[in-house]
Amino acid sequence: MPAMENDRLQSQLAFVLELEKLKNIYRQTLVLHEDRQENDAEHSFHLALMAAVLAEHASEPVDVLHVMKMVLIHDAVEVDAGDTYAYDTAGNATKRERELKAADRIFALLPDDQAAEYRALWDEFEARETAEAKFANTLDRIQPLLLNYKKGGISWKRRDIRAEQVIHRNQGVTEQGSTALGALCYEIIEAARQEGMLK
Amino acid sequence: MPAMENDRLQSQLAFVLELEKLKNIYRQTLVLHEDRQENDAEHSFHLALMAAVLAEHASEPVDVLHVMKMVLIHDAVEVDAGDTYAYDTAGNATKRERELKAADRIFALLPDDQAAEYRALWDEFEARETAEAKFANTLDRIQPLLLNYKKGGISWKRRDIRAEQVIHRNQGVTEQGSTALGALCYEIIEAARQEGMLK
Repeated sequence: MPAMENDRLQSQLAFVLELEKLKNIYRQTLVLHEDRQENDAEHSFHLALMAAVLAEHASEPVDVLHVMKMVLIHDAVEVDAGDTYAYDTAGNATKRERELKAADRIFALLPDDQAAEYRALWDEFEARETAEAKFANTLDRIQPLLLNYKKGGISWKRRDIRAEQVIHRNQGVTEQGSTALGALCYEIIEAARQEGMLK
Repeated sequence: MPAMENDRLQSQLAFVLELEKLKNIYRQTLVLHEDRQENDAEHSFHLALMAAVLAEHASEPVDVLHVMKMVLIHDAVEVDAGDTYAYDTAGNATKRERELKAADRIFALLPDDQAAEYRALWDEFEARETAEAKFANTLDRIQPLLLNYKKGGISWKRRDIRAEQVIHRNQGVTEQGSTALGALCYEIIEAARQEGMLK
């Protein structure tokens, strides 16, 4: 990059370019129209779009901008910590520690005021206590479910995932941020079970 | 998808799943950490993140939520019209007509009120008249420039792009939405020319 006089802009661009790496963090979910896994940048794009389009279905009124910022950075820590598959028990045992370390490094790339703002957004997402965090987590659960179902359940079948595991993963989370999306979630799981996509 | 009682949610999900196709529309820009082109979903993710992080650099105060929604759907028409390379003269001659037809179909997937809202956002982006549209267009110009420069100018060299072409494409647009990002744009172009990335 050419030398920059504007330190603040330089720090902001360092963060923006660090999150470029989300384009190379692959999830277990497959994209619908190619034979490949979805990456975190595509997943985050989809969640931000859903936050805008589906905000009216949130259980409580939400600040949509706040939700959108949150979903755009919710996977930033995976730049260092990698994607941990929802049904990987060993990986999930160390996930929190790995992600906290990553958060310490990545958000600190920003100028101090924004480093604090974006770290707080990530902590808020993880804590799932505010209306915005609850809705953001609902989107984060329903998006891969939609794609997995529309893709014929390939990524579930590959790992012999059972309907009970998917129900367990969603229970207390998906319906918490949105009654309508929560209902849809369990309808999709039941349809997937009946159609042999889930055991 | 299971039969849904909620027509409104069904229309919204149809739109959200239609934009899944942006994950398979490939641009001329390369991603930094793999040997492949960037797709529209990744590009839109990056613009939305930049809208949030860089909003303070907009020439006029902007409604950040409005900018973010705009950049998330600014390439939606490419689902039908495809990506037209900035320096493809023949493609650009028919681009507007192809994209208008696509906009008529794609935004109409949404419930009527949202169809009108999102179509208006796209028209606003294209017209580049409001503060939000100017800033969104600045981001849409500076993001590929940053990636192309950081990637050693590979995609410019492949097509023998001249510095004058890149200046012409940015002039009157990039600096319009942000003085700081406009200045950065011309610094990058000059550095790229000096380093032999641009003729």
